[in-house]
Amino acid sequence: MGFNIKSYLAAKRELIDRKLDSLLKYSPKSLTTLDESIRYSSLSGGKRLRPILMIASNEAFGGNEETVLPIACALEMIHTYSLIHDDLPCMDDDSLRRGVPTNHNVYGEAVAVLTGDALLTDAFNIMVTEGLNCGLRPKVLVEIIADISQAAGSSGMIRGQAIDLALEGITDVLIDQVDKMHSLKTGALIEVAITIGAKIGGANDKEIKKLSTYAKALGLAFQIVDDILDIEGGKQLGKEVGADARNKKTTYPELVGSKKSKKRAEDLTKKALKSLKDFDDKATPLREIALYLANRNF
Amino acid sequence: MGFNIKSYLAAKRELIDRKLDSLLKYSPKSLTTLDESIRYSSLSGGKRLRPILMIASNEAFGGNEETVLPIACALEMIHTYSLIHDDLPCMDDDSLRRGVPTNHNVYGEAVAVLTGDALLTDAFNIMVTEGLNCGLRPKVLVEIIADISQAAGSSGMIRGQAIDLALEGITDVLIDQVDKMHSLKTGALIEVAITIGAKIGGANDKEIKKLSTYAKALGLAFQIVDDILDIEGGKQLGKEVGADARNKKTTYPELVGSKKSKKRAEDLTKKALKSLKDFDDKATPLREIALYLANRNF
Repeated sequence: MGFNIKSYLAAKRELIDRKLDSLLKYSPKSLTTLDESIRYSSLSGGKRLRPILMIASNEAFGGNEETVLPIACALEMIHTYSLIHDDLPCMDDDSLRRGVPTNHNVYGEAVAVLTGDALLTDAFNIMVTEGLNCGLRPKVLVEIIADISQAAGSSGMIRGQAIDLALEGITDVLIDQVDKMHSLKTGALIEVAITIGAKIGGANDKEIKKLSTYAKALGLAFQIVDDILDIEGGKQLGKEVGADARNKKTTYPELVGSKKSKKRAEDLTKKALKSLKDFDDKATPLREIALYLANRNF
Repeated sequence: MGFNIKSYLAAKRELIDRKLDSLLKYSPKSLTTLDESIRYSSLSGGKRLRPILMIASNEAFGGNEETVLPIACALEMIHTYSLIHDDLPCMDDDSLRRGVPTNHNVYGEAVAVLTGDALLTDAFNIMVTEGLNCGLRPKVLVEIIADISQAAGSSGMIRGQAIDLALEGITDVLIDQVDKMHSLKTGALIEVAITIGAKIGGANDKEIKKLSTYAKALGLAFQIVDDILDIEGGKQLGKEVGADARNKKTTYPELVGSKKSKKRAEDLTKKALKSLKDFDDKATPLREIALYLANRNF
């Protein structure tokens, strides 16, 4: 086939990094460190999984990456804001993120809170202003904003984070509760990335349903692999190994053992691939991403 | 004329409170206190100044309050999120807000951060979903979202808050810096409330420009009166008296004295009223609000 997933991911990552760099303004004469802090957390690496999935899903319908790029970057900004707030002392109190000190360790807690707030608010500004520039119609933009705000808000990602906090330190957590928490905390944004990419590409309802199945399975597999890496992982992870245990998080290896966790991640990856069986070669990136994430060590 | 400003404000407040109550869902079986916390901070009083100004500005063009109500409520949610985050220990560390304990004092810091995040994200969801339900066209909604995210984001309210933090403890702050800070921190949302109300009502560019002048003058007058009340105010304020001094905030009475501050608030109120001189009787609520805010003791 000649498809090289590593080159694909690197190329898309560069595209996204370059666009984010151009979107995030920097006022050197500012009285505050706000701009610097926004750029620090937004441009310090990161897998760019969500925006890449949006582009790959759009490509599965013959889409053009330039059209989805602003929306993809806006979604990454929402993901970045959630990491900054999650890392705060009152939340997970993490000191490393993507291999560098967390935002509040560099700029202080107050600026870290505001940086997250700014990334979230500006993400919606970029969706509409840049989205219009890229030729997305207002009707489509309104649908995109409804979907993303639903996935990121009190019924989605934020609820997942709140449940995560509520489950901390509880010893008899059920696997269903952990599944539910992850499906909201990380799954919701992953799913909306994929379904929006498809919608912009012109997918029909049936196709979007299949991509939702793909997204849900991939999102959960991703989280299980994350939990395994938190125990076994090395420096590649870019965050503190064992942070989950320190924060009294219930992980999959802890719930069902390492072996069963790996088996479940494999089964979920198979499920993700199966849901794409009616898609043609244009869905190759989506298939390869699922395989790559299951076998990663970062 | 028979126009009673107190009755007008009370009626609009009730309308907004009722709509917010219906918009903010509560899941009693939830694992988290998130819903409860969202409702606690959103439904515990508040002057509802921004949504009332949006409605009044819309009425100045013969608009219908039902059409602007969802956008007005969404803007109030953004205001409420900003108060929750401003009150956090790492920010102003306030213990009272609207006469009751601040959110983090009731639900803890982590839930307070998430509650703010949820209100901000859900506000955008409500704008699009409820906005469409009320008959606002996607083209108009996209413009509303661009304006509000601009006013609330890193070039608006959040920058004002960041400048406020940066100025804390500095002894030789200039009045221009304080003006700039307030024009962003509180002025930006007040202005966008008024211009959006007018846009939805069908105002032309010239009329919107006049309303911007009104909004800027009213916003600054409001802030100056706030500073005076922080020193002189009683229990009506609903927050701790003297909080500005404790937080080493530079206030107008401190910069130019109490007498000159009062004179400036009066002059700004006159300027606000003058900018409406070509408007007809439908702008009576806007005029009366400016007078009421200048003479308030809460």
